[in-house]
Amino acid sequence: MKCIIDYGADHSFSLANLPYGSFYTNNDASTRRCGVAIGDYILDLQALALTRYFPAGIPTEVLSGPTLNAFMALDKPAWLALRLHLQQLLSSGSPISVDTTIAESILAESVHSSGSVGRRLFIDRLAGSTVMCLPCTIGDYTDFYTSIEHATNCGSLIRGPTNALQPNWKHLPVAYHGRASSIVVSGTPIRRPVGQILDKPQDAQPIVAPCRKLDFELEVGFFYGGKETQLGERLSPAEAADRVFGAVLLNDWSARDIQTWEYVPLGPFLSKNFATTISPWIVPIHALEPFTCAGYTHDPPLLPYLRDADNTNFDVPLTVAIRPAESDHTARFECISQSSMRHTYYTVRQMVAHHSTTGCPLRPGDLLGTGTLSAPGAEGYGSLFEKSQAGRRPFALAGGGVAVERTFLEDGDAVQMTGLIEGVDGHSVGFGECVGTVMPALPL
Amino acid sequence: MKCIIDYGADHSFSLANLPYGSFYTNNDASTRRCGVAIGDYILDLQALALTRYFPAGIPTEVLSGPTLNAFMALDKPAWLALRLHLQQLLSSGSPISVDTTIAESILAESVHSSGSVGRRLFIDRLAGSTVMCLPCTIGDYTDFYTSIEHATNCGSLIRGPTNALQPNWKHLPVAYHGRASSIVVSGTPIRRPVGQILDKPQDAQPIVAPCRKLDFELEVGFFYGGKETQLGERLSPAEAADRVFGAVLLNDWSARDIQTWEYVPLGPFLSKNFATTISPWIVPIHALEPFTCAGYTHDPPLLPYLRDADNTNFDVPLTVAIRPAESDHTARFECISQSSMRHTYYTVRQMVAHHSTTGCPLRPGDLLGTGTLSAPGAEGYGSLFEKSQAGRRPFALAGGGVAVERTFLEDGDAVQMTGLIEGVDGHSVGFGECVGTVMPALPL
Repeated sequence: MKCIIDYGADHSFSLANLPYGSFYTNNDASTRRCGVAIGDYILDLQALALTRYFPAGIPTEVLSGPTLNAFMALDKPAWLALRLHLQQLLSSGSPISVDTTIAESILAESVHSSGSVGRRLFIDRLAGSTVMCLPCTIGDYTDFYTSIEHATNCGSLIRGPTNALQPNWKHLPVAYHGRASSIVVSGTPIRRPVGQILDKPQDAQPIVAPCRKLDFELEVGFFYGGKETQLGERLSPAEAADRVFGAVLLNDWSARDIQTWEYVPLGPFLSKNFATTISPWIVPIHALEPFTCAGYTHDPPLLPYLRDADNTNFDVPLTVAIRPAESDHTARFECISQSSMRHTYYTVRQMVAHHSTTGCPLRPGDLLGTGTLSAPGAEGYGSLFEKSQAGRRPFALAGGGVAVERTFLEDGDAVQMTGLIEGVDGHSVGFGECVGTVMPALPL
Repeated sequence: MKCIIDYGADHSFSLANLPYGSFYTNNDASTRRCGVAIGDYILDLQALALTRYFPAGIPTEVLSGPTLNAFMALDKPAWLALRLHLQQLLSSGSPISVDTTIAESILAESVHSSGSVGRRLFIDRLAGSTVMCLPCTIGDYTDFYTSIEHATNCGSLIRGPTNALQPNWKHLPVAYHGRASSIVVSGTPIRRPVGQILDKPQDAQPIVAPCRKLDFELEVGFFYGGKETQLGERLSPAEAADRVFGAVLLNDWSARDIQTWEYVPLGPFLSKNFATTISPWIVPIHALEPFTCAGYTHDPPLLPYLRDADNTNFDVPLTVAIRPAESDHTARFECISQSSMRHTYYTVRQMVAHHSTTGCPLRPGDLLGTGTLSAPGAEGYGSLFEKSQAGRRPFALAGGGVAVERTFLEDGDAVQMTGLIEGVDGHSVGFGECVGTVMPALPL
């Protein structure tokens, strides 16, 4: 495979990836549309659908709207068909390879004859005029808690190491319902939340104040795809294998002090619903499949409905980096954590299957977060709660030359998550970045 | 006020109510549309919009779609304008009163000239061919826990009476995110969920089995309306007063045994997401306003951001009735609980304001459940968990002649919730019914 578009061997968006997103350009802002990232370009799928380069087997209308939901609602063979077609289209020397110059003229013909404005097939992805949106309408968002390192770290800090894991943890993928309305795309500024907190841990009377323990959580979000399940319908892990469309990076911003006070007995609410950032490009599940690794050994054994014959995870390295407020806003981000998608005790198929156990409908575009993906060891903490030992142990950052300390996030800090794995023949697969900068709280 | 449509003095859907819903008829099943309930009829708002009887100030397109979301996204003056207009339209002797016979002929003209099929303005609401749908697309669903009687009853059963209320309970309206995809309209059969439970309370190893402690929860759901709030935006209780569109009855079906095992530490998940039933008609907030009563005294005082100068609730009586499986399916429901909308320790404005504290976006169509509305005393239990004392004390039902006992729900049991208050001059306001029948679990 040699792509008609040039990119480096460590580029996230190679021919082996072809992630899907939704975007608009400032000169055509009313036309939000779907595209595929290839190198530093976006292949405009709405424009492609007007040409003879669009595959016959896919209904053009599923990619003519502003979001990916209709395409996600097709099935795995259809996703694979478009993917293989696009790979050929973008490979130089393949029978249907599109020459960009020819494509532009053919496109101009097609769209003019249908009365629309002619559009370029390839958009400069990095141009300031290109704006990424949420890739799909997210009906419901569920956040799991599947990293045994993270659950053990947090449990140890809260309850001590002997009771770190709750009795249910090794029997089911613990999860809670998140908030869909506050999911935002990478780059959206994050307002420090205000809420009820205890000024001192033993206080009985709370105060209302800006959050003092603002944290990130390094996660991956999987998008459900395929047929919507009906009320009462269950999926097995094997059936769930066909219902995962793709994945994004996810930062589950968390207000630890608000959470501590509010979460008994019904779980996190305001401490988690002020913002959740995702990376804009959905990496197709097919692009991740070459990078599987063995999943966890489940001891005690899981109940039969959770047994996954394909007990594999994806071994894609993940990083968290911070650019502290004290540094120049053009300074390099400083890596503070290194983990991997592999650190889920339950496979994504087990998460989907468990989610459907009681018959809860799953719809295309629903998002399932893995929970914080901490790796073993001090270099692998997926949150500041773990890295600062619940705020008790500050850590140092170079801060673009000026040494600074952190326990939790300060106003002006930017958090960047990335995920990238080198593929064969210079075709890497990555998520791009998931980034957000903390803005000061609004006055009460 | 005398309505052009006849109804009894205890009819839920009087001129003083005029609730909004979404429906279709079997002979026109592709045309799901919005309507207003009046007596045993539905005024078809999509058809009305084609006549001169539609008020000039409201854009017709907000009521031309299948759901109420666009209308809910207008503001309180617009909701009131349509309401007053419809009241005049339906009052005999008012200047703009619509005579049903004349209206039909005018309607036929209008719709034929626009190329559509002529439709009747008034649909028989009770005809078998009329099917009610969810009134709007529900983006996010939040469930509160605001009844002090319910929280005290549950806390006493779980932790004993001295620690019944958690330390945070009197400082903030505790809530969790619910699942939007499993909200269904009244009448939808409810499949008994299967899930992980402990066979005996002290077991360490769970089993997977049909839920043995299936319960209902008597709630009211408030729909957010008006302008969508932006990420980071907060509303005060006074501002929130303009953002409540209306209310429905809500049955938060609950699997108590699944809940007990799964809910530590992140709250209820599968135990609550298999089904939530709502009544199909949204009672406008304006229809409830004549029935306000004093809210609770807050001791300790609430933090300033939660103080509501208008500390009032709605005193609309609510009931739960059961028709046990053993009785004939035409048998009368037997009342087992009597409560009221008044039993929320926090006002609906405080719920909305608290929800926005950290800046979580609220969107038209979002649903906020009150939590189980238990009234003081043994007659006011809003759930079977309370009524059967966590399953320890069975209670008797007449069962249509055959005496039966229950602790939790059995397959075939039907649960009906109602809410109705008598108004002045024979114009009552009610929710209609919220009903569901339990079906046996599907085999694993």
